[in-house]
Formats: sequence, C-alpha cells, structure tokens
Amino acid sequence: MTTSGTVTHAERIRATVVEYLAAVADGSGADIAALYAEDATLEDPVGSAPRTGRAAIAEFYRALEGSRRATELLALRVTGSCAAFHFRVVTETGGRVHEVEPIDVMTFDDQARITSMRAYWAPSDMRQR
Amino acid sequence: MTTSGTVTHAERIRATVVEYLAAVADGSGADIAALYAEDATLEDPVGSAPRTGRAAIAEFYRALEGSRRATELLALRVTGSCAAFHFRVVTETGGRVHEVEPIDVMTFDDQARITSMRAYWAPSDMRQR
Repeated sequence: MTTSGTVTHAERIRATVVEYLAAVADGSGADIAALYAEDATLEDPVGSAPRTGRAAIAEFYRALEGSRRATELLALRVTGSCAAFHFRVVTETGGRVHEVEPIDVMTFDDQARITSMRAYWAPSDMRQR
Repeated sequence: MTTSGTVTHAERIRATVVEYLAAVADGSGADIAALYAEDATLEDPVGSAPRTGRAAIAEFYRALEGSRRATELLALRVTGSCAAFHFRVVTETGGRVHEVEPIDVMTFDDQARITSMRAYWAPSDMRQR
C-alpha cells in the first residue's frame, strides 16, 4: 500500500500519537481533545467510567493544565486503524514530581483522529521523585 | 484489597503473564492454550480474524512448535482484570532468526485465566537477524 510520495494511514496514526504526546506535555485540555473525534471515548485508567465526547475529554485533560509536564514515547505499535504505545509522563505540581509509564490503546478514524483511548496503568505504578 | 498473606488478583494476573511468556518460549500449543479460558478469544495481530475456543487457540500456537524460541517481558501494566504488556519474542526456524516486540492486551477471569488476547504489531515490526 506504500507508494512513494503518499502518506499511509499507519504513518498518519503514528503522527497523531506523536502529536498527542506533545500536546499532553505542552497543550491545554482543549488542545489535547482536538486530536480526538467529536464522539470519541476515553477510559483512563481501564476499568474507570468512560468519558464520551470531546467536551468531556477536554475536561479530563484540563486537570493537567496546572502542572509542568514532560512525555516520552517508549514503544509504539500500529496495526490497521489501531495503535498501542508505551510512554512516560512526568508531571510536576507544587514541587511534587510524579512519573508513570502507562500503555495506551487507541483506535482512529479515516482522518487519524482518535476515536477511543484506553489507558492501562494502576495507581501503584505511579512513582514520586 | 491487599492483605498480608493473600495473593491479589493483580498478582495472579501478573503470574499468568509470566507463565504465558514462559510457555511461548518453551511450551507446546496445548501448553500455551491451557492458560486460556475454554471459550477465550485470540486476535493476533489486531485486525485479523479472531479465533475462539481453546482448541483453535492451541492450533494457532502449534505453529511455534518447530522453532527455537525466547521471550522477554519489557513492560507490564495491570488494571482491574486487564493487562497490557510489551515483550520481545525471538524465533529461530531453519537457521533464520526473527525478532518482534508486540504489545499484547489481555483480559482475565476470576481464576486469572486469559479470556481474550489482542496482539498489536505489524509485519513491518518484524526484524530478521
């Protein structure tokens, strides 16, 4: 399916994941939610009540806005219109630094917007530095 | 939920993942399938036709039996009755060595048997050594 000069769907999905981690590090809740489809779902962590729709998703990420953040992609696998990736997120709020390395699973639409996100991690995976 | 002397569900799930990787490295198709619930499903890679039931799952893994194999767990996250993990699998068949590092997502029953497995990787992730 790869032709010189064209961008494959897998490449667009990879680009969205990279944009996502950049937005989690630097963006507002609305910036991050803009990478999602309008009717997307978010379940973070897996087992918690899912949030549906871009407004609820923006609200979820707004909690990050008061902290300094850094992200790093550790591993990314793309198959079909799905991705799974392992990453590190470090947040600093009021002098406290927390680090966690979740594994997220996402699905994407034809425009490589996120249609669902499920985050695999537990509070016991969180480290304070 | 953690009480001294008891084994939590998360710990049992972690043990099943470790057993799974040991069986993928050393076991028969039936050995690996024995870690699955009777009516479990397997989708490897994600996007391919799922296989249902322990017999179909044993058949899937039987393809490994002719090769020397090694596995290594790179990262594991457990939340509720779900796990996601990144691992390396190296197979040697007729002098050819292939290596791939998928991210797998599994769900588990109350006995920590695997009820579903979905493997995120693409043929382009496979390296020949």
